[in-house]
Amino acid sequence: MNPELLLSRIRVVLCRPSHPGNIGAAARAMKTMGLSRLYLVEPKQFPDPEADTRATGAVDLLQGAVVTNTLPEALAGSGFAVALSARQRDLGPVIGQPRETVARLLAEAEHGDVALVFGNETMGLSNEEIFNCQAAVTIPTNPDFSSLNLGSAVQVLCYECRMTAFAGKPPIASQGATAFATPAASHDEIEGLYAHLEAVMTDTGFFNPEQPGRLMPKLRRLFGRSRLERDEINILRGILASTQVRTGHGRKG
Amino acid sequence: MNPELLLSRIRVVLCRPSHPGNIGAAARAMKTMGLSRLYLVEPKQFPDPEADTRATGAVDLLQGAVVTNTLPEALAGSGFAVALSARQRDLGPVIGQPRETVARLLAEAEHGDVALVFGNETMGLSNEEIFNCQAAVTIPTNPDFSSLNLGSAVQVLCYECRMTAFAGKPPIASQGATAFATPAASHDEIEGLYAHLEAVMTDTGFFNPEQPGRLMPKLRRLFGRSRLERDEINILRGILASTQVRTGHGRKG
Repeated sequence: MNPELLLSRIRVVLCRPSHPGNIGAAARAMKTMGLSRLYLVEPKQFPDPEADTRATGAVDLLQGAVVTNTLPEALAGSGFAVALSARQRDLGPVIGQPRETVARLLAEAEHGDVALVFGNETMGLSNEEIFNCQAAVTIPTNPDFSSLNLGSAVQVLCYECRMTAFAGKPPIASQGATAFATPAASHDEIEGLYAHLEAVMTDTGFFNPEQPGRLMPKLRRLFGRSRLERDEINILRGILASTQVRTGHGRKG
Repeated sequence: MNPELLLSRIRVVLCRPSHPGNIGAAARAMKTMGLSRLYLVEPKQFPDPEADTRATGAVDLLQGAVVTNTLPEALAGSGFAVALSARQRDLGPVIGQPRETVARLLAEAEHGDVALVFGNETMGLSNEEIFNCQAAVTIPTNPDFSSLNLGSAVQVLCYECRMTAFAGKPPIASQGATAFATPAASHDEIEGLYAHLEAVMTDTGFFNPEQPGRLMPKLRRLFGRSRLERDEINILRGILASTQVRTGHGRKG
């Protein structure tokens, strides 16, 4: 299924968010990753100018947000819901890693609406809310500091949704130049460089063909790693030639 | 190498950040993922109370932050630097996907310090700054809205660092109960349930053994999907038995 369509089927449900700024940050995080459907269960303050400010260009998601009194209302019509939870609850769904859980969410999205459910900033989700979900996920954190911001948690899971929907390779925005590259140098061109280099080093006395040591293999190793391009060979040989002119050896060549 | 040690070798370098709040958010994002070394190149305002507020429990990273005048100073002593860039620059390193680029970063961290380099909120990194880095990465975004918050960008890449350092399976904080589970039901126990169910349904008239249709296969399919546990079998048979007592059929069984 079309990745954008899959992403459009994911509801992001924020339960009892305390800070309007976090609602805005969540909307911005969602929109950057191509998600658009925001649900708010009992937000403490919404709409709010602080939410609009933090959303920047994602105010349209705030305007389209669905506000409900309970989580079941926000989940109505969806077929699969994943709860974000930092800890395993008794009788709750087993907590999974983000990647595998998001893969399951996207697989379910093939059949219809699904939901990612986030709890309150301080309290997280209640047990009852988690029991409304069919799966649970945690974002692995530093055990000494697991205080993930709500907007950041939404960002990470929406990012995983985008990565998964596009099978790990979402298109990269092409806003500028393409990567600079000239055709790769051929074997002969590369060997020509080494011969030229050896000649110059011999002329300058840096290299003694009678006692070659490991100098040439080391240079081959260095340039071999960089996968030389034709233009680069030309530049390097130009430099070599210019030293030859200066030292008077060029005329011999 | 120990994943925590690898993570401790990653410098997060913010170039010319405008908003102290974003510095705090970056510190918090880093610490949740086990990164600790923050470098600030020409921050507009630092230290600042807003940075402390947004950092919450990660103020120690702000206190330990290294402030420099130029990017090369921030990179001194490191061996490999990745620039975050939304677009390809002429002659700049080819922009990679987050997962593959972070894998390379972590591989380089085996040998010493490495850096993740982020640009200014509005302007991003200058070409000159990008040329100081050996690789570049972008975070794939919605082409219609690619405005990723600086703190969010730091969060996503630090999350990828943690996932990669722990080979995709960072330990999940075990702050609560373990997942509830009783031993799986045996084949005989499951068949006992079906026989019991069939008996009850026959008694109530819901099931006609003369015209069985597909009722039992459908029930087997349903319970088969849920991998029944022994306790659950006991609960289900308890329910069945209770209906038998009520309808008076239990005494026959």
